[in-house]
Amino acid sequence: MSQKIPYKIYLNEDEIPTQWYNVRADMKNKPAPLLNPATLKPLTAEELEPIFCKELVKQELDNDTAWIPIPDEILNFYKMYRPSPLVRAYFLEKALGTPAKIYYKFEGNNTSGSHKLNSAIAQAYYAKQQGLKGVTTETGAGQWGTALSMACSYFGLDCKVYMVKCSYEQKPFRREVMRTYGASVTPSPSDTTEVGRKILAEHPGTSGSLGCAISEAVETAVKSEGYKYELGSVLNLVLLHQTIIGLETQAALKKYDIKPDVIIGCAGGGSNLGGLVSPFIGEMLRGEADYKVIAVEPASCPSFTRGKFAYDFCDTGGICPLAKMYTLGAQFIPSASHAGGLRFHGMSTILSQLYHDGLFEARAVEQTSVFEAAEQFARVEGILPAPESAHAIRVAIDEALKCKETGEEKNIVFGLTGTGYFDLYAYQQFNDGTMSDTIPTDADIAAGLSKLPKVDL
Amino acid sequence: MSQKIPYKIYLNEDEIPTQWYNVRADMKNKPAPLLNPATLKPLTAEELEPIFCKELVKQELDNDTAWIPIPDEILNFYKMYRPSPLVRAYFLEKALGTPAKIYYKFEGNNTSGSHKLNSAIAQAYYAKQQGLKGVTTETGAGQWGTALSMACSYFGLDCKVYMVKCSYEQKPFRREVMRTYGASVTPSPSDTTEVGRKILAEHPGTSGSLGCAISEAVETAVKSEGYKYELGSVLNLVLLHQTIIGLETQAALKKYDIKPDVIIGCAGGGSNLGGLVSPFIGEMLRGEADYKVIAVEPASCPSFTRGKFAYDFCDTGGICPLAKMYTLGAQFIPSASHAGGLRFHGMSTILSQLYHDGLFEARAVEQTSVFEAAEQFARVEGILPAPESAHAIRVAIDEALKCKETGEEKNIVFGLTGTGYFDLYAYQQFNDGTMSDTIPTDADIAAGLSKLPKVDL
Repeated sequence: MSQKIPYKIYLNEDEIPTQWYNVRADMKNKPAPLLNPATLKPLTAEELEPIFCKELVKQELDNDTAWIPIPDEILNFYKMYRPSPLVRAYFLEKALGTPAKIYYKFEGNNTSGSHKLNSAIAQAYYAKQQGLKGVTTETGAGQWGTALSMACSYFGLDCKVYMVKCSYEQKPFRREVMRTYGASVTPSPSDTTEVGRKILAEHPGTSGSLGCAISEAVETAVKSEGYKYELGSVLNLVLLHQTIIGLETQAALKKYDIKPDVIIGCAGGGSNLGGLVSPFIGEMLRGEADYKVIAVEPASCPSFTRGKFAYDFCDTGGICPLAKMYTLGAQFIPSASHAGGLRFHGMSTILSQLYHDGLFEARAVEQTSVFEAAEQFARVEGILPAPESAHAIRVAIDEALKCKETGEEKNIVFGLTGTGYFDLYAYQQFNDGTMSDTIPTDADIAAGLSKLPKVDL
Repeated sequence: MSQKIPYKIYLNEDEIPTQWYNVRADMKNKPAPLLNPATLKPLTAEELEPIFCKELVKQELDNDTAWIPIPDEILNFYKMYRPSPLVRAYFLEKALGTPAKIYYKFEGNNTSGSHKLNSAIAQAYYAKQQGLKGVTTETGAGQWGTALSMACSYFGLDCKVYMVKCSYEQKPFRREVMRTYGASVTPSPSDTTEVGRKILAEHPGTSGSLGCAISEAVETAVKSEGYKYELGSVLNLVLLHQTIIGLETQAALKKYDIKPDVIIGCAGGGSNLGGLVSPFIGEMLRGEADYKVIAVEPASCPSFTRGKFAYDFCDTGGICPLAKMYTLGAQFIPSASHAGGLRFHGMSTILSQLYHDGLFEARAVEQTSVFEAAEQFARVEGILPAPESAHAIRVAIDEALKCKETGEEKNIVFGLTGTGYFDLYAYQQFNDGTMSDTIPTDADIAAGLSKLPKVDL
């Protein structure tokens, strides 16, 4: 193979982007504001600052500034694990026999195992800048909690993680990584908060939920002097930090004069998808380029493809802000899917608006087909992917196989958000042939959507 | 900081070495030959070939050829995960406040999680070349088994792994990685072999041992048409393949005109240590340079520092060849240490001879101090190290702290062989404060050495 393009494209350290890109500045239709759940009015900075760091609130509400400089200390930390490689999937292309050229941006080569560290380090930095003692957060599968623990350890901040109790018990290894980075990890619900005690009293044997863990983390932040709450997805500020993924991808592609045709990302709350695709969508919004962008979601939790674009609560309990987003309803409970990071009933407001405006398409894929793609990928590319990431692999393979039929030499780029080293129970089910697909019925979807709150703005 | 040296030095893909280095060619005192356990005579190629691949036997016995070309297909596979970065540990230097410059060669960025893949891909290649159907091996902690599974998957070879039963049960995740790569994993002892059935009959509740798993893997290879046995450490051929680590390190250092003063590697069977240091020791043997080379072993299994340089069996059962090596005696049972990869009672014959000839020094370190180093390293450098690798970190930190006292700006290079994602039970013990150090008494050592076989050559 005559090959000018290496297997792994690494930017030099001085080529790492020094600004984040805020796609909102280029959007004609801005994402709808978050609403106060009590008043149903747009949340102000003053209302958000008791919970979140001041600078992060500013980033959350800023719909106008296109380019935001990345502080030096964050750029310095990036050098611990960035630039991440843009990998040319030569092995996968050969295995598929496709004329397509496949590239993936691999965010898993750090101990948190995923892209989550990109926002964690930024959020920890702003907490440190504000003179805080520490931060609180919740974690389900554990990737975000691990990332925030690493970031807090770097800045000498205390990190209190509420970990959904069933994960705390079933994923002791994730818990130990967080503890190794000095975080305190509390199974949720716990008796350390009012909301936790209330839930424990009402449901003594409960194994917890993400909604409950969020409530405990927020309560602890608000009630503890010198603490704020941090969140790893959905928010505008998170998408902003994650644009380092897409910006590095653009720089790496440019270095070898590659124009992508198809860009694919998996979609949960939107942190990875938004981070990868928004710099490209920015080019589309500014009329500079055109790409086929595909969001991939699990068929078990299909917010884009079967949800409704409407205001909804972000949590099951209805105490968090409302967001206008593609949602299945805050009461929708997805079947037990192993892609824990893709089980959110809603979606980033930025991505929801962009999808509504036709900037990208979405596909829902079934779990077993996702693990088939994961296995094939692992065997030829040597990386065991996280189940979340494997959703993007599935569609990348599908697109590459289409090119095989048509003979098109398309450039396909997808985001490989992380590794599956802590997801091997799911792989075991797949290896054993006991994995199943559960797709919500139309009645399930209708039931979830029937309880959307009524909001008149 | 004014910094011409990046955080991560990556060679370009065309700078990856294309030859392995065979240090035996430059050794005045050649490593002593392996002996047939029945005849106590040096093993011939004819005796080894029923067990091992022909080309590998040739490499094992070749004491003369200094440079051996790496076949193209192996070089091609290398591009999946090599070159591995040589990382400048700026964060660690800062945390230690040392004037020393610390570099580590990181071999953990592949799904096997360690350097073991370097030899696995070579051994699988030669098996494929020889037209075999598949290979057998044993695995304890699981790193070698995972690496060989990946390599066999790439070449379409069947891979039968005998996994020590207690690891099979306690490390189900490693097992599932191997299965995802298509290997069949059998808990050992098993009823699939004569030796397994015999052991099961004699010790019905046994949780197995590496020695037993080796015996099962060898028996299966010898009795199965089209199968050979493969081994991931100790052997000369393994050290040969692993020199890619040291050769890449040399090339990366040369690129930035860095002359190392101290080179540190952890020592179990010797695959990592030999791979990292033998190209440097080659320079010493040829009189081209001088380095301080340090082997680090666990105080619980101190073969270099408290063992004897003598012929001994490589396995507990005494059915494998004898090797002249630093040994604690084949009957020596190290206390339960979590650095599973460093629990071998003996040592590579090449490294044993080099140590005997004064080419490097050795240090034994205690487990809790190793995990203290691991934690410190993880927090500042962002990589959660394998317990084995953390032995090298411990001594690298110690050396850097000495430089802090003396003000010397030494260049310290160490091998970071892998990640600890599958070793979190050990981290949990450390986090909980329940980890202990068990150092063999002089009587324990004497007892182990009292049973060395008598060999007159």
